[in-house]
Amino acid sequence: MKDVASAAGVALKTVSRVVNGEPGVNPATAERVRDAIDRLGYSRNESARVLRRGRTSTVGLVIEDVADPFYSALSRAVEDVAIRHGCLLLTGSSGEEPARERELVRTFCARRVDGLIVVPAGGDHSYLRPELDAGTPAVFVDRPPGPGLDVDTVLSDNAGGARLATRHLIAHGHRRIAFLGDHPSIFTAARRLHGYRAALGLLFDERLVSMRPPSPDTARADLDRMLALDRPPTALFTGNGRLTVTALRALGGRPLALVGFDDFELADLLSPGVTVVAQDPGGMGRRAAELLFRRLSGDDGPSEHHELPVRLVPRGSGERPP
Amino acid sequence: MKDVASAAGVALKTVSRVVNGEPGVNPATAERVRDAIDRLGYSRNESARVLRRGRTSTVGLVIEDVADPFYSALSRAVEDVAIRHGCLLLTGSSGEEPARERELVRTFCARRVDGLIVVPAGGDHSYLRPELDAGTPAVFVDRPPGPGLDVDTVLSDNAGGARLATRHLIAHGHRRIAFLGDHPSIFTAARRLHGYRAALGLLFDERLVSMRPPSPDTARADLDRMLALDRPPTALFTGNGRLTVTALRALGGRPLALVGFDDFELADLLSPGVTVVAQDPGGMGRRAAELLFRRLSGDDGPSEHHELPVRLVPRGSGERPP
Repeated sequence: MKDVASAAGVALKTVSRVVNGEPGVNPATAERVRDAIDRLGYSRNESARVLRRGRTSTVGLVIEDVADPFYSALSRAVEDVAIRHGCLLLTGSSGEEPARERELVRTFCARRVDGLIVVPAGGDHSYLRPELDAGTPAVFVDRPPGPGLDVDTVLSDNAGGARLATRHLIAHGHRRIAFLGDHPSIFTAARRLHGYRAALGLLFDERLVSMRPPSPDTARADLDRMLALDRPPTALFTGNGRLTVTALRALGGRPLALVGFDDFELADLLSPGVTVVAQDPGGMGRRAAELLFRRLSGDDGPSEHHELPVRLVPRGSGERPP
Repeated sequence: MKDVASAAGVALKTVSRVVNGEPGVNPATAERVRDAIDRLGYSRNESARVLRRGRTSTVGLVIEDVADPFYSALSRAVEDVAIRHGCLLLTGSSGEEPARERELVRTFCARRVDGLIVVPAGGDHSYLRPELDAGTPAVFVDRPPGPGLDVDTVLSDNAGGARLATRHLIAHGHRRIAFLGDHPSIFTAARRLHGYRAALGLLFDERLVSMRPPSPDTARADLDRMLALDRPPTALFTGNGRLTVTALRALGGRPLALVGFDDFELADLLSPGVTVVAQDPGGMGRRAAELLFRRLSGDDGPSEHHELPVRLVPRGSGERPP
């Protein structure tokens, strides 16, 4: 660092500021320092730094699947906030497997991440307690932690969104409304089923409900079974973006009314356009990351629980008559 | 680690194997070790380990935007290979800004990543030379590095794919074929323009070409300008997934034939279905990661340059007559 400072003609403190991403350095000076760093091939020895200061400026993010647009939008928002705080992201996909989630968190902690943002796959997070006790903050997003863990959470209004979707279909004349949801062990799937059921009241019929992971074959089989009932469904409510796309393929043009939970990029270009309950995955990621950085900057107030609103976006498919 | 070994009733070496993800441990034994680790709140001190061994089991990945489905599929594939090698991913999005790419690579190197996988935004990578000389391997994917850097690359057959798309439209009777591409400073955009131009030969007309980043307003303006020509285009070739979606919105139902570079999730559900030249982002990520891990395991042969094939998927939009 002394060589860099003398090559750039600045004080040692200025080099340290630039390297650590601290404010208060004139942009032209910062550029001169960076050029000197490049010229000299200098690279901060992060490992030594960690041992000295105890911070790694790294945040660990566990999501379900980065290839799912909901989670990639959430990831991007977390990344944007982390960058603003001079932090990098370690990311991993659990693939909805509790053991994989646990393994990822364990590995992140072994790498001494400063904090964790977790979309949990499992329902038992007691394994996190030693890390929390040791002062590593965690924020749970999209789904809450298992019992006994008191951490910040950022969720969507899942039950409210499902009520909104179901009431919208009822208002358009439907009485037989089917629900395709993900496995009921998934928090969001269970909350959406709850909202759907509450909105239907006496109209609820369990034969119109299927709760399992999205797959073209099972979606087709479930729909065929429901459509063969004496009083078949005239409308369909799908419990997440993957299920909506799967159902659109399985329906193959059958004119059921449809409302999907989660917006998706081409929903407006299909015909009819697909009516959805839109969550805000970017807003959820942002909120979770901001909470985490507040904790990292010393906020030790009681844990906070945010529930973000959702909104209905009518585009045609949810306004079809029975 | 001694406490863990005695709590789990295994040898110290077994604990070390489990913690380092090495093979040869009976799954039930491994689970017992993990339980003991959880019970004792033990966490490997990665920083001390790095200083001792010089490896961090971390790979840095720079992409353009994790919220773009092409790059999220590529990321997921890199992650899957990294996991198999017991490595974690540090990821960052350059947002197509060379300065941001450089900053990310610099930060990854400061964190002592074992290797780098880079989708470059810029055309000058001389800043990487000190890292390469210091033995950190890098693989460039989707786009090659700037001049003078001799590293492994994994690209798609961009020019061949563009020829394929353009010839397909010519074979369906089109002579006036427009091209919407991204900014020509982007390697893939330039290669696709090249293939389009080569396939058209004397049919090429620069008034039917627009090269700039996807935006609804500019796409609409460019199409309006082209459609107002004396001899307007009867077909459109779009240079990437984002541009295809942007163009679909801008076309607003005008019946131009359309072939898009890059497949996308709902292409088959639109009417007509969208004919595309499909790349294999998962295959590209996998290949790049496998190359990197071969280098990390000691392969110091000459650098390799892989070009993955693309394929045309006809779905209706590209088969419309003029």
